[in-house]
Amino acid sequence: MDLQDDVSNQQNSERGSQISHLALDIGGSLVKLVYFSRNNDSRRDDDNEQRSRNECLGVSDSDTCQPFLDGRLHFAKFETSKINDCLEFICSKKLHLGGFQDCTAPSSENICVKATGGGAYKFADLFKEKLGICFDKEDEMDCLVTGANFLLKTVHQEAFTYLDGQKEFVQIDHNDLYPYLLVNIGSGVSMIKVDGDGKFERVSGTNLGGGTFWGLGRLLTKCKNFDELLELSHQGNNRVIDMLVGDIYGGTEYAKIGLSATTIASSFGKAISDNKELEDYKAEDISRSLLRMISNNIGQISYLNALRFGLKRIIFAGFFIRGQAYTMDTISVAVHYWSNGEAKAMFLRHEGFLGALGAFRSYEKQSLDGLMVHKIVQKNPSSISSAGDKSCCSLNSDSKNENENSGCSVYGM
Amino acid sequence: MDLQDDVSNQQNSERGSQISHLALDIGGSLVKLVYFSRNNDSRRDDDNEQRSRNECLGVSDSDTCQPFLDGRLHFAKFETSKINDCLEFICSKKLHLGGFQDCTAPSSENICVKATGGGAYKFADLFKEKLGICFDKEDEMDCLVTGANFLLKTVHQEAFTYLDGQKEFVQIDHNDLYPYLLVNIGSGVSMIKVDGDGKFERVSGTNLGGGTFWGLGRLLTKCKNFDELLELSHQGNNRVIDMLVGDIYGGTEYAKIGLSATTIASSFGKAISDNKELEDYKAEDISRSLLRMISNNIGQISYLNALRFGLKRIIFAGFFIRGQAYTMDTISVAVHYWSNGEAKAMFLRHEGFLGALGAFRSYEKQSLDGLMVHKIVQKNPSSISSAGDKSCCSLNSDSKNENENSGCSVYGM
Repeated sequence: MDLQDDVSNQQNSERGSQISHLALDIGGSLVKLVYFSRNNDSRRDDDNEQRSRNECLGVSDSDTCQPFLDGRLHFAKFETSKINDCLEFICSKKLHLGGFQDCTAPSSENICVKATGGGAYKFADLFKEKLGICFDKEDEMDCLVTGANFLLKTVHQEAFTYLDGQKEFVQIDHNDLYPYLLVNIGSGVSMIKVDGDGKFERVSGTNLGGGTFWGLGRLLTKCKNFDELLELSHQGNNRVIDMLVGDIYGGTEYAKIGLSATTIASSFGKAISDNKELEDYKAEDISRSLLRMISNNIGQISYLNALRFGLKRIIFAGFFIRGQAYTMDTISVAVHYWSNGEAKAMFLRHEGFLGALGAFRSYEKQSLDGLMVHKIVQKNPSSISSAGDKSCCSLNSDSKNENENSGCSVYGM
Repeated sequence: MDLQDDVSNQQNSERGSQISHLALDIGGSLVKLVYFSRNNDSRRDDDNEQRSRNECLGVSDSDTCQPFLDGRLHFAKFETSKINDCLEFICSKKLHLGGFQDCTAPSSENICVKATGGGAYKFADLFKEKLGICFDKEDEMDCLVTGANFLLKTVHQEAFTYLDGQKEFVQIDHNDLYPYLLVNIGSGVSMIKVDGDGKFERVSGTNLGGGTFWGLGRLLTKCKNFDELLELSHQGNNRVIDMLVGDIYGGTEYAKIGLSATTIASSFGKAISDNKELEDYKAEDISRSLLRMISNNIGQISYLNALRFGLKRIIFAGFFIRGQAYTMDTISVAVHYWSNGEAKAMFLRHEGFLGALGAFRSYEKQSLDGLMVHKIVQKNPSSISSAGDKSCCSLNSDSKNENENSGCSVYGM
């Protein structure tokens, strides 16, 4: 058994009854939720979760003499604008009561749940009113870093590079992990220089993020779903709408400064002179142009910040990426291009849940008085690896179906 | 008389008959044109040009014993998509024949005109066919740098800073001019490290430029004119459509990392969750959000590049700016914010014509065999300065009217 890391479960602490099964990261666009279920949980036969049984990080027997929980971590997301779906989900799973139908629920008056992201402030009253739980707020950047470090140290084949359609896992020596630049692409983008556990600085960011892609995409294509918008981009051709160097130079390159004819000179620049209205453009082409514009921009600003601090390793995460080949490829190409091949973009298989995982992990900080400690282990690293691959590649279709069926997505890790 | 610099006029050179009165910079969105008229030009009473008589850089008697031209420089722009308007303008002014109705036109078979920008390649055949002139192509970056250096060294009160609505002219010691970062915002954006006359390197750029603002703006608002789109932004409120930190954090700031409640977290991010269609948003708000997104992004990437090369001075030019208070303010704030107040954005009064001026200046390189040399002087620096101010501030309305009337804009410098 390959013991990886500790997560404490503490139902009674100085802050009241805390439920380690649940942690939330409430961003501007999405609510990310991590919860824990015991293996003897009555919900283990639930259809929606059955298929992810082998795709999870097991939380199992520790080799200590302390009490333990045997179970697994689950991941779910909801649109922040549909926060009620999230409340209903928590309620239906009784996560606010400990998640177990047969458990003796602690007095809801005192229940505190770890939460991070701006929504931990914005929706605190709503959660108190509807579910009777209060948020124990954790700093957003702190949680992102904690989540990233946890994944990088704990999960086998978590980080990978992606270039020219080739995915290559990177085994990072734990002693050589720091420093790195963590780029979390949510609604906006945060760029964090990470020097160790709890040692970090938010050095930059950009307001052209996932929210911009989704917001502009929604206005331009009437597509109301992030995943559908991404899906559209697969069939699109950005050259229909972007102004290329070749469009300006009459089909030739601008060789002197190394700009090929197909380099994008101006995103959406062709819309200036085309005698077309919005309706005349295909949603697929618009989506692809938008995706490329934003991915490339993030890649460029990230590289410039990595350069500034002498960081060779740039790790991209956040729900914008969603394991999308084209997104990762564009970011990778941008980093490669601007760094003259000196820097490499890396991605994480569990990219979207850094903040929620970090919040979940923050229970550990208060574990000294905890009654129970459990360890997160990888029961079968190779099967997790392939499951992770599948998860990365099938996240969108899965999540789309989930959204259609139940208004949320639940992933095994 | 304050002699500033030399520009040669050479009608006969080894490359055939060259007309120093005309130089073109043909970009992806706009054709910029610089031409020279003698003071005894019969067109001096032309109404459109009359008003700019005192707003020009005089080209006057030199103190050498060489022959000279006494006249002024004119500036015009056309949309590249309406290149025929440009051809007609040149034809109507007989600029391709030397510009003078009473001149003895050189054989049009041999006429070469300095041209730069991608359109010098793309439209070479068209100009040859329609006007019988060939383009003597000059490198685009070279021309931008030549134009910028010329303006910075020659024109009194050319460079200024802009912050909080305050415009402040900067007198740059010629011996302390280099190095600086030149950021030219056309359809796309070029960032050039300038170390001296002819000594430069294009170090970066971004494909989110003026073409993106115009292209996206056109699709989102149906506004077909760049100047109108800019005008709209004056009345707009980007907070209607941008997701602010306060929107995520329930009205509060994210103080720990210095993000105020009004900081834009995600451009166009509110469009995700608002239950609105494109038609429900005001064009003014969209335009302002777009302008801020692109200006801020350019400011940020520019600063990161300046930092990389240790450049304190960042000079922004290109037709995207057009002396717009809000654009300059956003760029300035971005540079100020990201540099913690250490770097300052500077702007140029004659921002849009760097490339065309550089191409015009390139006649000088071939002046050794020239028959005539003339000097560009500022006849009255103070009046030029105020004229420049006016020009900067009234460029848009002027150009709009000009466009309505004649399909082009003519500015006195």
